[in-house]
Amino acid sequence: MSLIVQKYGGSSVRDAERVMNVANRIVETYDKGNDVVVVVSAQGDTTDDLIEKAQEINPKASKREMDMLLSSGEQISVSLLAMAIEKIGRPVISLTGWQAGFRTDSKYSAARIHKIDTERLHNELDKRKIIIVAGFQGVNKYDDITTLGRGGSDTSAVALAAALHAEVCEIYTDVDGVFTADPRFVKNAFKLDDISYDEMLELASLGANVLHNRSVELAKKYHVKLAVKSSLSKNEGTYVKEVDQVEKMLVRGVTRDNDCARVALCGIEDTPGKAYRVFALLSQNGISVDLIIQSIGNGEKKDISFTVTESDLDHAVQILEDNQAELKIDSIKTRRDVSKVSIVGAGMVNNAGVATTMFEALYNADINISMIATSEIKISVLVDQKDAERAVVAIHDKFML
Amino acid sequence: MSLIVQKYGGSSVRDAERVMNVANRIVETYDKGNDVVVVVSAQGDTTDDLIEKAQEINPKASKREMDMLLSSGEQISVSLLAMAIEKIGRPVISLTGWQAGFRTDSKYSAARIHKIDTERLHNELDKRKIIIVAGFQGVNKYDDITTLGRGGSDTSAVALAAALHAEVCEIYTDVDGVFTADPRFVKNAFKLDDISYDEMLELASLGANVLHNRSVELAKKYHVKLAVKSSLSKNEGTYVKEVDQVEKMLVRGVTRDNDCARVALCGIEDTPGKAYRVFALLSQNGISVDLIIQSIGNGEKKDISFTVTESDLDHAVQILEDNQAELKIDSIKTRRDVSKVSIVGAGMVNNAGVATTMFEALYNADINISMIATSEIKISVLVDQKDAERAVVAIHDKFML
Repeated sequence: MSLIVQKYGGSSVRDAERVMNVANRIVETYDKGNDVVVVVSAQGDTTDDLIEKAQEINPKASKREMDMLLSSGEQISVSLLAMAIEKIGRPVISLTGWQAGFRTDSKYSAARIHKIDTERLHNELDKRKIIIVAGFQGVNKYDDITTLGRGGSDTSAVALAAALHAEVCEIYTDVDGVFTADPRFVKNAFKLDDISYDEMLELASLGANVLHNRSVELAKKYHVKLAVKSSLSKNEGTYVKEVDQVEKMLVRGVTRDNDCARVALCGIEDTPGKAYRVFALLSQNGISVDLIIQSIGNGEKKDISFTVTESDLDHAVQILEDNQAELKIDSIKTRRDVSKVSIVGAGMVNNAGVATTMFEALYNADINISMIATSEIKISVLVDQKDAERAVVAIHDKFML
Repeated sequence: MSLIVQKYGGSSVRDAERVMNVANRIVETYDKGNDVVVVVSAQGDTTDDLIEKAQEINPKASKREMDMLLSSGEQISVSLLAMAIEKIGRPVISLTGWQAGFRTDSKYSAARIHKIDTERLHNELDKRKIIIVAGFQGVNKYDDITTLGRGGSDTSAVALAAALHAEVCEIYTDVDGVFTADPRFVKNAFKLDDISYDEMLELASLGANVLHNRSVELAKKYHVKLAVKSSLSKNEGTYVKEVDQVEKMLVRGVTRDNDCARVALCGIEDTPGKAYRVFALLSQNGISVDLIIQSIGNGEKKDISFTVTESDLDHAVQILEDNQAELKIDSIKTRRDVSKVSIVGAGMVNNAGVATTMFEALYNADINISMIATSEIKISVLVDQKDAERAVVAIHDKFML
């Protein structure tokens, strides 16, 4: 008998039929003799509907009250799912975040989990109950409800799996697992059987949209084995775990991220510390900078380009313009219609030829590269957004076929 | 500076506009220097919508999970109302039932309040915050969410007023106060300025639909002064409190209750204890009996008639039929199309002529009375449902004009 944590997203429980479907899956796992703890997100569009209600009344509502409001969405879905399991006739109990023992810090709308008091969970498991836990939420030291922010339910599930020493944390989505590229436009893309935490982290942060970064980081930290599976099929899915360093495949995934914009600072004074000043300023204002390139200076002037997310672009430009005189920047140029295309693979650290192969694929497809960045397990390039899908296909076919 | 508890029902906060309206009323009271604690019900049809969602999945869902589901409705309304007050710019905090310290027994869907831990409430009041509390809910000793059943938000408000020693508990509805009769069909009906707890209790249980019985009982027990007011007007409303026994008016209200049905047990053996057996049987099955009449027996057979609520009728008949042979009842007859018409007034205890006047009014209106019951402060009669409104008008005009 094992303890299994399962997580179902909002689309998996969006209506009565899907709720029953999920209930049947849970019971199937339970009937094999496993202890089952399930984390659920709010149904379908519930969260968006609640946000709309709030906007209508006060677009600047405090985060504390927003968390109070939004956490009701999961309270609805957990109770409905529990009712569905009651109907099948298995012992079950739904728990809110605070009932399940999720203790967080007080950063409303983006809270971090401090710890999980597992006493109640263990009590219910001892009674052989299936436990349905509201994802995305907890309480802080004031007993106020907090939410965990984007990807919060994944994080809830992994944290539970870690706290309860679960054998596996199964994340159910509407795709069959982690693919080598987005199957919607890369027809040769195929599902991976397993992937390492580090690779998954790069893929998650590169816009693979399967698992949220925070949950993968947490899984890595506490050695929680993750399984990414479809809630609609019986396929095996992809395991995210410590993978043997000797890889069969050099490149594990090719991704595209359209949520980026480029900022070019032209003619900035070529003195020590100028680049530092620019990036410190942005970081102090909560803006993350991704790819960076800097032209070789001539001792007087140089150019610096970098990317930020599209939503941060206006803010970043505002900050730089406010300090343009002091920083001695001749001009600030921006572009939104760019995409970041990346390859990820733990094996590439020992293989110098990978970058060359990637550039060759792009060259053959007649796609221009405007920026390049590399890390130990990934290589990213910036291309025109209109070329991005073609770039992914070209690179994917070059490596995978 | 006084502490004022206000309660707003679901229709008072059914959309963004009404929420803002209620927020403005609250702030008005707060700006006069009062401490304000507000209890809110779920918005408009939220509770019905949630019940429908549950029905779709499992019509026999456990009450524990139903309470988990339904309590989310108030969590939504309290946070939205708090956001509206934030918009006006006053310090405010919303609290769920458990955060506000409502401790109940474990009777899911009809829980009783054990006590209110007021520590958090006092802390927030000390910070001069307006507190918005989710009505209708609490937690039991297992930390599971319970709901208080029908009229629960009124009860929450009165319990808070008692625990915090509020100067007054204002119950906001969509009518101007307590009327001498239903103004929808009694054109001469007028609003009462004040009414005693006992009178209000009789009116509440007789279908006046203004305040729920439990809340009035609680108010009486803890001497909480109630004010019934309209959330849509600035009128004074009706105070429910200990009223001086010397009444100006003999009769304070005339009510009609269509939710009743008559059961006649014909030809039941006229031996001691038979009536007791009948009513004990019904009471053991949770069925409340209201008006009762018994024919004078002839030593062999007698008839017993009584009323129950319409929803209990089938159940009551089933029980009696199951025991018909043992109880030796010749036949069981039922009627649904009856109404109970009542007059209430603390002054009538000392005035024998009241009943006569009531019967005279009905006689003049050519309305037949099939059952009569009296208590110290009320007289009820059973009439055909089709005659009920006419009966109320006739009695009201006889006493009030």
